[in-house]
Amino acid sequence: MTNWRSNVRTVVPYTPGEQPKTKVIKLNTNENPYPPSPLVGKVISCLDEDILRKYPDPSCDVLISALAKYHNVDKENVFVGVGSDDVLAMSFMTFFNSKDPIFFPDITYSFYDVWADLFRIPYETKALDDDFRIISEDYLKPCGGIVIPNPNAPTGVAEPVEFFEKIIAAHPECVVIIDEAYVDFGSVSCLDLTRKYDNVLVVRTFSKSRSMAGNRIGYAIGSKELIKFLSDCKFSFNSYTMDSITLAAGVASIQDDDYFRDRLADVMSTREWTKTQLSELGFTFPDSMSNFIFAKHNTMDANVIFAKLKEAGIYVRHFSNPPRIDNYLRISIGTDEEMQVLINELERITKGVN
Amino acid sequence: MTNWRSNVRTVVPYTPGEQPKTKVIKLNTNENPYPPSPLVGKVISCLDEDILRKYPDPSCDVLISALAKYHNVDKENVFVGVGSDDVLAMSFMTFFNSKDPIFFPDITYSFYDVWADLFRIPYETKALDDDFRIISEDYLKPCGGIVIPNPNAPTGVAEPVEFFEKIIAAHPECVVIIDEAYVDFGSVSCLDLTRKYDNVLVVRTFSKSRSMAGNRIGYAIGSKELIKFLSDCKFSFNSYTMDSITLAAGVASIQDDDYFRDRLADVMSTREWTKTQLSELGFTFPDSMSNFIFAKHNTMDANVIFAKLKEAGIYVRHFSNPPRIDNYLRISIGTDEEMQVLINELERITKGVN
Repeated sequence: MTNWRSNVRTVVPYTPGEQPKTKVIKLNTNENPYPPSPLVGKVISCLDEDILRKYPDPSCDVLISALAKYHNVDKENVFVGVGSDDVLAMSFMTFFNSKDPIFFPDITYSFYDVWADLFRIPYETKALDDDFRIISEDYLKPCGGIVIPNPNAPTGVAEPVEFFEKIIAAHPECVVIIDEAYVDFGSVSCLDLTRKYDNVLVVRTFSKSRSMAGNRIGYAIGSKELIKFLSDCKFSFNSYTMDSITLAAGVASIQDDDYFRDRLADVMSTREWTKTQLSELGFTFPDSMSNFIFAKHNTMDANVIFAKLKEAGIYVRHFSNPPRIDNYLRISIGTDEEMQVLINELERITKGVN
Repeated sequence: MTNWRSNVRTVVPYTPGEQPKTKVIKLNTNENPYPPSPLVGKVISCLDEDILRKYPDPSCDVLISALAKYHNVDKENVFVGVGSDDVLAMSFMTFFNSKDPIFFPDITYSFYDVWADLFRIPYETKALDDDFRIISEDYLKPCGGIVIPNPNAPTGVAEPVEFFEKIIAAHPECVVIIDEAYVDFGSVSCLDLTRKYDNVLVVRTFSKSRSMAGNRIGYAIGSKELIKFLSDCKFSFNSYTMDSITLAAGVASIQDDDYFRDRLADVMSTREWTKTQLSELGFTFPDSMSNFIFAKHNTMDANVIFAKLKEAGIYVRHFSNPPRIDNYLRISIGTDEEMQVLINELERITKGVN
């Protein structure tokens, strides 16, 4: 007789960035340094607790309506989930059921191969070029699906819409997912392509640009047919993913667009200042259009800098795999004050200044 | 060239109970008529909104610690998810990977066959007997897994621990899931069996007994090995399922045990009163140990009663499938006042009293 363990789906799970419990400068998980709109806090604190005894609206109508209006699409073009990870996991499960491999970059969001392994989806990674750019020609062969972040992570490099249209136009046989987790920080969205191609899914998150990582909201926009397939799978997995508080908080964030745009401008301005400072200290990096910078130092090893920063109470992210990026640090953009402390510390570390 | 649609995982999704937007007496989705503990509301309204910009603790340590202490197990024995549907979906995906069919009752929670279809898991349903009891002998053959709710839904019938131990002892080759969504309303838990057998998973929810359907919290208790396999799959799907507010709200609910037990006593007392009233009106039903009663009338058709109740602004649940239960109504237990209105209305409907 077999043992129950032989029927288990065994996997090697994704390791999320560290969440230190002591007070530190936390530049390791691409969180926004500013709180969400004050409207979000107000909506949460004024909530009538009696609504909690009831199931939330499974159609998530208030949030989907707000997103549809914001992006000028119909409600049937919008899907919401528990962070963009939930939206992406559900999309991999729904759309990538071919025997042909799916394609994604070799240096990219490290969850893609984890989902592929979980769902037993064959995949091929395509190497970035020496400047960490995606080579569009690598993505033109027939395949089981494509997923590319724009801007890419952890490089921060963005590509223009035409770049993606060329790839999409070559792939009527599969779904193409553009993961726009960081698009609000200054690059151009592929949203318009979802009107032109019925097999393009654009995925977004409230975790970065909307300062709501703690709430868990992600969404996707695509053709009505694509969204219907995705919703059917979602309703076969869990009807009630979005809780009542989160739905209300998400709507509040969308309503306060001035606050959203002002904080984005703040982060982008701090990013540009940080780029100048890092260059002066001997760091090089691809030009980032996200809320992080992926940098290496001309002479000093990344793991040495990483360890010294950690000692000083500053957390950044260091990926030891693949080897090609093991000398880089991914530094999230904090407040001006936090980045000044970082730059001072990096000056001490790299120049031996005391 | 193939069309992208041929690579889509197509499914027939679960249909959740209606969530009417007008003011009605809502006895159709087994929600608790009482709000959650006042502590829950207090914790939510006092939350510092700045924590929302950060990712929640992916280990869900505060909530898992509180649950472990409450159930007198170790933290490594506890798994939490976005409602018990999320926990069950993840468990089906993790544990039911045999080519042999899984077993569950023919009349039971209508999501089981939806998950089996979603994950392409073969299954066999086992017919309840004429009194809506599960026949344990039907579950003794080797199989790919077993899932049984206790009490069963929508019947409300509970079985003793020995009943489940007999089944579990026969199945070293697969995982046995006991879905205890309704166990707090007066039946005996199989939690102790998780200490004795390493392949038993007990699944619970905050949605019913803790009045927190709007928050989305479910959990599972099992051997450390079982929980590790489940967590690995969960971390391969979505690292951050539980948001910061929900984690805090869940802990608050567990801390206020007096409130929890008092409201359970209220619901059970109203249920017993409702049973007496329904009997007097000519309804019959299996003896329910849950927060609902599954009843049919001696002479009047269920769909007639259903429609008339709906007209009167009272929502109950009617399943047209399987045909064997199409003359039954599942009536959730509301407040004393709501059940009095229901009984008055049923009296009018069944006796033609005006």
